[in-house]
Amino acid sequence: MQLIETIAEMKAWSRAARVSGATIGFVPTMGYLHEGHLSLMRQVQAQTDKLVVSIFVNPTQFGPNEDLAKYPRDLPHDTELCASVGVDAIFLPTPAMMYPDGYHTYVNVENLTNGLCGAARPGHFRGVTTVVLKLFNIVDPDVAAFGRKDYQQLQVLKRMVVDLNLDLKILEGPTVREADGLAMSSRNKYLTAEQRGHALVLSKSLERARELYRSGVRDPQEIVAAVKEMISATPQCQVDYIELVDAQHLSAIGMIVKPAVLALAVKVGNTRLIDNAVLGEDECR
Amino acid sequence: MQLIETIAEMKAWSRAARVSGATIGFVPTMGYLHEGHLSLMRQVQAQTDKLVVSIFVNPTQFGPNEDLAKYPRDLPHDTELCASVGVDAIFLPTPAMMYPDGYHTYVNVENLTNGLCGAARPGHFRGVTTVVLKLFNIVDPDVAAFGRKDYQQLQVLKRMVVDLNLDLKILEGPTVREADGLAMSSRNKYLTAEQRGHALVLSKSLERARELYRSGVRDPQEIVAAVKEMISATPQCQVDYIELVDAQHLSAIGMIVKPAVLALAVKVGNTRLIDNAVLGEDECR
Repeated sequence: MQLIETIAEMKAWSRAARVSGATIGFVPTMGYLHEGHLSLMRQVQAQTDKLVVSIFVNPTQFGPNEDLAKYPRDLPHDTELCASVGVDAIFLPTPAMMYPDGYHTYVNVENLTNGLCGAARPGHFRGVTTVVLKLFNIVDPDVAAFGRKDYQQLQVLKRMVVDLNLDLKILEGPTVREADGLAMSSRNKYLTAEQRGHALVLSKSLERARELYRSGVRDPQEIVAAVKEMISATPQCQVDYIELVDAQHLSAIGMIVKPAVLALAVKVGNTRLIDNAVLGEDECR
Repeated sequence: MQLIETIAEMKAWSRAARVSGATIGFVPTMGYLHEGHLSLMRQVQAQTDKLVVSIFVNPTQFGPNEDLAKYPRDLPHDTELCASVGVDAIFLPTPAMMYPDGYHTYVNVENLTNGLCGAARPGHFRGVTTVVLKLFNIVDPDVAAFGRKDYQQLQVLKRMVVDLNLDLKILEGPTVREADGLAMSSRNKYLTAEQRGHALVLSKSLERARELYRSGVRDPQEIVAAVKEMISATPQCQVDYIELVDAQHLSAIGMIVKPAVLALAVKVGNTRLIDNAVLGEDECR
């Protein structure tokens, strides 16, 4: 497994892989890897000859009052995990490389980024789409994977790939959860033991939403109200947003007649967590 | 010479060219070709095995009150001109192909697009950078050329290519002029014979700016004032902007101490024309 620390080396590595006839898979991450990331890696690996993982805590996707400075990092452990999966190369750029002096170019997926986390975190998706496009241009993958936990991000990136005519297949990884249901996230590290307990209300409330859906409820407001009630009743939990929107366009719906996503963001203490459930898919995740 | 009418065919053509080991040159245009475009084509042709020209009047770079509907078109003549230069493929996408329903992704080069034509034509460069990035992704060129007449566009696109880590060389073509000095532009077609005469003040005023610079004037305001006076004294000419800014960053300067560009946009009758002169380069264009 190679650790690649410059853009030029990463491009040369991918070019050499291509010349040898290999296909390239890619999982972009911000590090502090967990089973969610590893499951994406295995999923990509099954489809491509080579697997590249990037670890880059991307400053442009953090707002001024967000957790950029304290975002958890553990490169030695990340490296071990990547090696255990059989990653071929880890790409480790620095902010100064990615955004040198005079950097001015940003990609916006408009409309899809207006609501949900886009409304709660202005500029967040502009940072995400920009860095992902740059990473795609550097790594030149055939396949890249993103998790469903960041549901809006996934839809935004799928839109970007289509709109910008990129030759690239996006794989969607299911949300990977702890045994008790908490969606895996690098930010779970911020939680105290007590908060960790309270945070279970997120997945439990989504389970309640699924039950309501299965029992025939099709009114988004009824489902959102039930979820909101559960979360609001939980200590240290403050709702950022709870919305039930069209699963593809992320737009408001009057009634659930095709797949819809219940997406939520909740602050548990000072830690903002997100989770979601898609209702009306063949397979109810 | 092949006429290629779909994105899929264009991608397949470029892929085949690459597999054969050929390098690809690219000149994106809005058609109604003139010697300025042809000189770009010849310049690229000297550096690559294959030459692709796109002809696409890009709706997203026109403002609501601009000349999209009446922008001049003459595909038969354009095709002849391309054949005369030895173009290998002309790519002719439609707006519906480039911007299908649900299209939402736009590229912005911030900062560089705040002034000059960016201020006068809100959204213009967002359309330019977006379509050019899409065309780059479709045609996959090694080399692409843009003319210096659209000076700000050239700087914006150079910035985009660097910022987004594209593997692509941008060639700059000098402004090609009619015998009497008028910068070639597809929009010159809009001018009446009388306006055509008045429009000569643009290149003449730039010549005056060069003289002032050569005579030692380094105060931007003095040069801008002289140019403004000439243009304002000419019938049917209405100044949109006249600015003398840093040639690379397009930022305001207090004194000319390194290359600077005098850029101007003038309405001659209803036709908006642009032109520019770079001062302080080795070669005074």
